[in-house]
Amino acid sequence: MRAEVICTGTELLLGQIINTNAQIFSRGLADLGIDLYTITTIGDNQARIEEAIRHAQKNADIIILNGGLGPTEDDCTREALVRVLGIEEEVHQPTLKKIQDYGKSRSLALLKNNEKVALVPQGSVVFTNGVGSAPASAVVRDAKVYILTPGPPHELTYLLERGVYPWLKKTYGLDVTIASRVMKVINIGESDAEEMVRDLVCSTNPTLAPTIKKGELHFRITAKADNVTLAHQLLDEMEDKFRAKMGHYVYGKDNETLEMVIGSLLREHGLQIACAESCTGGLLASTLTDVSGASDYLTFSAITYSDYWKTEFLDVPLDILHKRGAVSPETVKLMADGIRHKTGADIGLSISGIAGPTGGSLEKPVGLVYLGISMVDGTYSKKILLSGDRLFNKELSVKKMLGFLYELLCERYVDGEATSH
Amino acid sequence: MRAEVICTGTELLLGQIINTNAQIFSRGLADLGIDLYTITTIGDNQARIEEAIRHAQKNADIIILNGGLGPTEDDCTREALVRVLGIEEEVHQPTLKKIQDYGKSRSLALLKNNEKVALVPQGSVVFTNGVGSAPASAVVRDAKVYILTPGPPHELTYLLERGVYPWLKKTYGLDVTIASRVMKVINIGESDAEEMVRDLVCSTNPTLAPTIKKGELHFRITAKADNVTLAHQLLDEMEDKFRAKMGHYVYGKDNETLEMVIGSLLREHGLQIACAESCTGGLLASTLTDVSGASDYLTFSAITYSDYWKTEFLDVPLDILHKRGAVSPETVKLMADGIRHKTGADIGLSISGIAGPTGGSLEKPVGLVYLGISMVDGTYSKKILLSGDRLFNKELSVKKMLGFLYELLCERYVDGEATSH
Repeated sequence: MRAEVICTGTELLLGQIINTNAQIFSRGLADLGIDLYTITTIGDNQARIEEAIRHAQKNADIIILNGGLGPTEDDCTREALVRVLGIEEEVHQPTLKKIQDYGKSRSLALLKNNEKVALVPQGSVVFTNGVGSAPASAVVRDAKVYILTPGPPHELTYLLERGVYPWLKKTYGLDVTIASRVMKVINIGESDAEEMVRDLVCSTNPTLAPTIKKGELHFRITAKADNVTLAHQLLDEMEDKFRAKMGHYVYGKDNETLEMVIGSLLREHGLQIACAESCTGGLLASTLTDVSGASDYLTFSAITYSDYWKTEFLDVPLDILHKRGAVSPETVKLMADGIRHKTGADIGLSISGIAGPTGGSLEKPVGLVYLGISMVDGTYSKKILLSGDRLFNKELSVKKMLGFLYELLCERYVDGEATSH
Repeated sequence: MRAEVICTGTELLLGQIINTNAQIFSRGLADLGIDLYTITTIGDNQARIEEAIRHAQKNADIIILNGGLGPTEDDCTREALVRVLGIEEEVHQPTLKKIQDYGKSRSLALLKNNEKVALVPQGSVVFTNGVGSAPASAVVRDAKVYILTPGPPHELTYLLERGVYPWLKKTYGLDVTIASRVMKVINIGESDAEEMVRDLVCSTNPTLAPTIKKGELHFRITAKADNVTLAHQLLDEMEDKFRAKMGHYVYGKDNETLEMVIGSLLREHGLQIACAESCTGGLLASTLTDVSGASDYLTFSAITYSDYWKTEFLDVPLDILHKRGAVSPETVKLMADGIRHKTGADIGLSISGIAGPTGGSLEKPVGLVYLGISMVDGTYSKKILLSGDRLFNKELSVKKMLGFLYELLCERYVDGEATSH
């Protein structure tokens, strides 16, 4: 089964709102095992909607239209569909009654407009809207299914989950399941990672496809099978092969974040952590505390933005700041040691760099960042060079810091082979 | 000029990510006065991309392709385009050199893959990517423009703004100007704000349209005119009327953020600020330091996540924490006073609350947050109740804190009428 989704709405083409409905459809259809081939976004223009439907007929078995079912002049999606199919409209009585009950206190002119919302293509299966007015409806012609759905995301979600998807499943006896899983990778570049799993990337079921995320890599495994159990078995097998090749470059999967995985390791091993941040200004501590229960391992952190506070609070000697500068391996190591000793934590983290756009020099350009980690067995630093704007540099500094910490934690606390560097 | 955008990426059809690039294109093209007719989203499949290009040729003068320019196997957008147009590829030497310089330490096999990124359709105008590898390129055939753009949003934005849009403007002498400006509003609800500018919302040129953003409101003014000067004159007039009605609820416009405006006020009046954060875990300080030059007014901040550090570092008496709790107006006031005195700053900010999903009680539910501000003339607190998930609650707490601070700063330091409460 191939599907095409046509989203209508001039506001989408003017960039006034993000098309979140596209994601709602693509997730739901993937779960049903329906191949979504195309998502088309067009304006509220009847002729263009008709043309889009005709084009979709060439490739798709299921054509889903979204938006343009409201009471106003520019709502014309249903009109376009019935015109292309050459069928009539009919009134969906339960919806009409709801609108009339609601509109009793209002003017007749308004009511007339709103009654339009109760119309559906003749012969439709209608799905009543429990959280709004316009119903969803499905009509079959020449072995193709045409589905009308309203635009507001919460109405759409309600109607898909309670009406459209169960109906599609029942009617078409969908028995192919598509399941997917995202493997999350850190501390390695895209090309190097792909090189390590080249044979797996070539497999057809499950497939394995990389995407670059800010500072990390995601590999999506997608499996097709006759049922959920078999699909998950395929995913598990691929995950095992992937992990065997990638080792501790894989930090987690699906909704797991690096800060969650680090948090679990810290909790498991009873480790306390504290941060001393300069250029990231609190973003590192904020990210670590994005995880519920972070207070188990983080109780205090400091933003030592100025040289004064690096000396006053973290005991970084003034002459080091003068000789080596605040952005130097020496300083971040002393900052990390400083915050660890000050707080009595097991691990001290520090970041100092030039986030930009100002403050750079020939010797120390914008984007130069040093990371420091102080642990009981020693103090470590890493130099990175970033090329984004200020916010991107802050975000990537934090991601690189978490990657660095994850690497050191793996070497010390996780069984099996360590990352190879 | 009619445009069509074709976004490629199987991950978009699987619902893995939201297509934010669609909005980037639609906003930018609207500002150029180019009619965007269709946005099509399809998978990384060369045959289907070719078919989409052929279909777009029927309706559009400008066909923009997005994504699929990377080094991996499934990147095939450029290949599809040159095949449809029947032209060759050529190497963009500056990009090749950049890739080779970067890859010098790496294996030859890897380099070969990455060199693919330096290819562009023969005869293209090439726009060098200052924040990534793959360049954007434009090629004209039979009076139609074909533009290739990379997928990562920050690379796309960079290339559109610095390369593609200026080139389109110059080449096509775009003469109807659509200009827009966003007025940013804080500390007032949507209905109240709309009520205040009801007559302006009804005007047709410029138009004024509200959008709800996290914790603030944006009003977009859009003007159409024969040239930029006239368009900006219309924008200026509307801005004046808008400001006259909304007073200090308007904190800024366009790219100005609340933290920038607050930063300017602090710098202008020589004020130093420091934060003591509990539930936001550093996000408040991080947001304040998202502004370049923030070190002028913020030199130190603390994350006092545990009761111990609230007492130890901020001198909040232990019996207050026991009697009133960490999440209470008394505690945030003492935290704000504490950080102000500890650092010698003019203003101390504090946040304490229950970000969730755990830690709530009947008396103090998840989403309950107190904000504290300590100033020379007194200490103030505000209670807010949020209903999102942990990350949303953190983000909104920071926004509400900045709104609160902006209000107090306006009352003290900004001429003219103050906000009416």
